[in-house]
Amino acid sequence: MPYLERDGDVFVLYLGNEGQTDSENRFHPDWIDEFHDQLDRVEAAEGPAALVTVATGKFFSNGLDTDWLFANLDRMHGYLDRVHSMFSRLLTLNMPTVAALNGHAFGAGAMLALSHDFRVMRSDRGYWSLPEIHLGMPFTVAMNALVTERLTNQVAVEAMTTGRRYSAVDAIAAGIVDTQADADRVLADAVARAGALTANRKPILPVIKRALHARALEGLNTPTTAENLPFGG
Amino acid sequence: MPYLERDGDVFVLYLGNEGQTDSENRFHPDWIDEFHDQLDRVEAAEGPAALVTVATGKFFSNGLDTDWLFANLDRMHGYLDRVHSMFSRLLTLNMPTVAALNGHAFGAGAMLALSHDFRVMRSDRGYWSLPEIHLGMPFTVAMNALVTERLTNQVAVEAMTTGRRYSAVDAIAAGIVDTQADADRVLADAVARAGALTANRKPILPVIKRALHARALEGLNTPTTAENLPFGG
Amino acid sequence: MPYLERDGDVFVLYLGNEGQTDSENRFHPDWIDEFHDQLDRVEAAEGPAALVTVATGKFFSNGLDTDWLFANLDRMHGYLDRVHSMFSRLLTLNMPTVAALNGHAFGAGAMLALSHDFRVMRSDRGYWSLPEIHLGMPFTVAMNALVTERLTNQVAVEAMTTGRRYSAVDAIAAGIVDTQADADRVLADAVARAGALTANRKPILPVIKRALHARALEGLNTPTTAENLPFGG
Repeated sequence: MPYLERDGDVFVLYLGNEGQTDSENRFHPDWIDEFHDQLDRVEAAEGPAALVTVATGKFFSNGLDTDWLFANLDRMHGYLDRVHSMFSRLLTLNMPTVAALNGHAFGAGAMLALSHDFRVMRSDRGYWSLPEIHLGMPFTVAMNALVTERLTNQVAVEAMTTGRRYSAVDAIAAGIVDTQADADRVLADAVARAGALTANRKPILPVIKRALHARALEGLNTPTTAENLPFGG
Repeated sequence: MPYLERDGDVFVLYLGNEGQTDSENRFHPDWIDEFHDQLDRVEAAEGPAALVTVATGKFFSNGLDTDWLFANLDRMHGYLDRVHSMFSRLLTLNMPTVAALNGHAFGAGAMLALSHDFRVMRSDRGYWSLPEIHLGMPFTVAMNALVTERLTNQVAVEAMTTGRRYSAVDAIAAGIVDTQADADRVLADAVARAGALTANRKPILPVIKRALHARALEGLNTPTTAENLPFGG
Repeated sequence: MPYLERDGDVFVLYLGNEGQTDSENRFHPDWIDEFHDQLDRVEAAEGPAALVTVATGKFFSNGLDTDWLFANLDRMHGYLDRVHSMFSRLLTLNMPTVAALNGHAFGAGAMLALSHDFRVMRSDRGYWSLPEIHLGMPFTVAMNALVTERLTNQVAVEAMTTGRRYSAVDAIAAGIVDTQADADRVLADAVARAGALTANRKPILPVIKRALHARALEGLNTPTTAENLPFGG
């Protein structure tokens, strides 16, 4: 379950379980509820603030909880919309946000990373990747909107149609992440970047974000249906 | 006329005439029909596959068949829509696509290149260019959509309003092409790149492409009319 | 008040006052009228032509005339629409345009720079910046459209939500400006660039520009209202 720490004015949201490392941090429905609860606490705090999201060990997040999903296929569309709710909330959060990519960010986990204002990625290991094509899976309207609005068209083509695994260097070249850092500096660099931006936590900030991301949000707020989520052919 | 060869799982579509080099590979109506017929054959094949498009000699393609067009101005709008049909078909083809730019790609030929997933360009000679402004010609709604959706806005400004001739190095810097190769390696590099992607030829691939390119396709599917193709003033 | 000089076929529009240096070149309503009057003269000229916009001293433009605005808050919406009219006019001018950024381009002054086809920026001093977040100010629908359409999404995130001050090197890396030059070469380089493009001043040019910038123009032509200009919360 996600848990929260604080470093000065910077909230650090850990995606994993306290005291456990190398968890995959997949989005179980209860996990999503806790994620939102923690952001409620973050957003309720007053004064200068910024958010850093991070995990420990090999994974940032592997995205969808496919075990749960395959056992609950009748609840798939509603589940996906809950996943999207994390993306849209991060995109419009009332403070600056930085993802510290300590390890793999795959699928919806890669999209969670894209939903932050900035990304710092570990240099030596870990990939950002959208493996949907390899799994024969489609993107929802919401996911398609997020990825195509956040990245240039050609990067979206490569990421979405080839499932390329981007190292930190590749991801920077593609405009997917902003900077890289040694493994033991990823969190510190992200906190430093976020810490320099806490004064921008003002009432106008979410207004600016909602306008800036209007097209992505239009897609993210589109409910998933059998009709708009075709599985190929 | 376009003709087809095969290199393992990679289909190689030659834009020129078999046994002839340095042809301009302009889009005569019969040429467009043959292009679609060859793609019918490609798409009908089963199993892993990818497409490479190439020509031989100095030209990849010089685009519109202006000789035919000036002799058939009354059929201009329908002709242009047939040209657009090649772009939209390539953008959504049910397998990965790579353009091997062996030589000049001008005007609608440059757009044909943009309609592939990836582009490899010859290092030493040949330009990618949209010379419409020099000819005093407009872009159709479809062409405008393709170019502005595939490239960043500033690159579109330069390409469309100045007619700049991009060498391979310039085109890579602008995000118009992906990689360059020596003249005798362009086709081989493109085939290698395509060959590495043949496993992505799955039912979900065209679904992903149609969503990813939705805005370009909306423009590409707009019929050309006298009203939406103004010639200036 | 803006005034005009001519260098061969290149019109040079100075944003400052003749004989005065280091003026901030803010957009007073009378200044905006004079700006349009000067562009009327430029557009009325026949034959090959291009426009360079520049100032002298430390500032290109600091944007909105906040002194006037705070004394005339009841006229704010109409005033902002007049500001937007400069952006949309430059975006679609019937000749090539180059901004020579001799000094600071802030807020609406930075947007005026973005409204040109190309930008040359002084290497040693001066910043391009959108300080709205620091001032707690929103972007209008028009300004949001201009910035988000002209820049990549991630650059828009950084520029609009952090108020980062971009030096010439930073601005080139971000795709905000095209080239840099020594202080005493900024105008000459901009005139050289514009001079090489004067032959593109053809009836088709504004047609191409209007289509290319259609989405930015849709935003720029949206009248500002209390409803679409929220001040936060």
